[in-house]
Amino acid sequence: MPPAPLPQQLTELSELLGRMCAAAAGALNRATAALLESRERLATQVVAGDEAIDALRAQVEELAGDALLFHSPVAGDLRAVVSAIRSAGDIERMGDLALHVAEVVRMRSPNPALPAEVRPAFAEMGKVAVQLALKAAEVARTRNVILAAELDTDDDAMDVLHREMMEVLMDEHWPHGVRSAVDITLLARYYERFADHAVVVARETVYAVTGQEPDALPI
Amino acid sequence: MPPAPLPQQLTELSELLGRMCAAAAGALNRATAALLESRERLATQVVAGDEAIDALRAQVEELAGDALLFHSPVAGDLRAVVSAIRSAGDIERMGDLALHVAEVVRMRSPNPALPAEVRPAFAEMGKVAVQLALKAAEVARTRNVILAAELDTDDDAMDVLHREMMEVLMDEHWPHGVRSAVDITLLARYYERFADHAVVVARETVYAVTGQEPDALPI
Repeated sequence: MPPAPLPQQLTELSELLGRMCAAAAGALNRATAALLESRERLATQVVAGDEAIDALRAQVEELAGDALLFHSPVAGDLRAVVSAIRSAGDIERMGDLALHVAEVVRMRSPNPALPAEVRPAFAEMGKVAVQLALKAAEVARTRNVILAAELDTDDDAMDVLHREMMEVLMDEHWPHGVRSAVDITLLARYYERFADHAVVVARETVYAVTGQEPDALPI
Repeated sequence: MPPAPLPQQLTELSELLGRMCAAAAGALNRATAALLESRERLATQVVAGDEAIDALRAQVEELAGDALLFHSPVAGDLRAVVSAIRSAGDIERMGDLALHVAEVVRMRSPNPALPAEVRPAFAEMGKVAVQLALKAAEVARTRNVILAAELDTDDDAMDVLHREMMEVLMDEHWPHGVRSAVDITLLARYYERFADHAVVVARETVYAVTGQEPDALPI
């Protein structure tokens, strides 16, 4: 079978990245529910589901390789292919981070991993991170650079939540001991990193579309 | 100026990746010395030096883009270019992780970030991580897949050290409080992730050379 024409391959790449990013959002959404409600079976589903995200990365890389091999794209088309390879790496990592959240749930089960008073903050971190990933999915699919510019600002909310959580732990009166502080430190970092990767995916798209790093753009 | 011939560009890519990985090893080596000896000025140098690693990534990506654009490489040559782009992302991240270690040193300065009794473990983690990065540099430069296969095993030592450190923290009798447990949790994670990325760089090289994921190889 001859390879598809380049424009069709590029559209397919965008759609794959969008699906992959939406899958990572779904994984973190479920992992967060599992974390907040100590649902071990749901956590196990998240762990099992990570393979599907890894498989999407392999699909992106194969398609990108075909596009390079058969069409020798130039300029914006070349940037689109290269940035798809890079974005797929970031989104796979988002899936891994959702999996890490789920693993903490399973490790502590049947006990809850989180003391009750920090659950609202993690619910909020989960919400922000999932929204960022869904927006990154939309950016990857539609290559909308205006929307992409929003993610940097959205991510500030995550940084604030992360810093606040660290301050709660650092408080001398933290009553839940070291073990729970260690879990919370890692969990908070997983959410923060997940959000960072979503921002990078959006920035990759801006680079692919405009040829410029987002910092250089007047948007 | 006409672009260099493809073989020359590929050699240059390998050399750049090797230099970049050696630079990341150097950064973590200095960050570890700063951590163990509470040397704030050295930590500041590590933070300042991260730009040089980021600049090497940009150089790799530019050269890889040129190779794709002017030579439309196929088969192993195409894999070499694509894997260089991916490896550069991993090595940049290694630099970021060395920087994070240095940032913790600065944040806690003039106090030491680590209680005395965990310093030997961190000295060991630093040693293992730096050795992994230097070996990954050698793999990237020489494309030696036999050497690459060693990194997976070498990384096991890091996983053991990381697990032991977590067990020390989780011990009910941890005497240094939550704040230091939080710092140690993050620091240990930075070393573990640094080592993971070095392993990935070696695996990328195996993929570039053989066209197969390392797990599929009989080495």
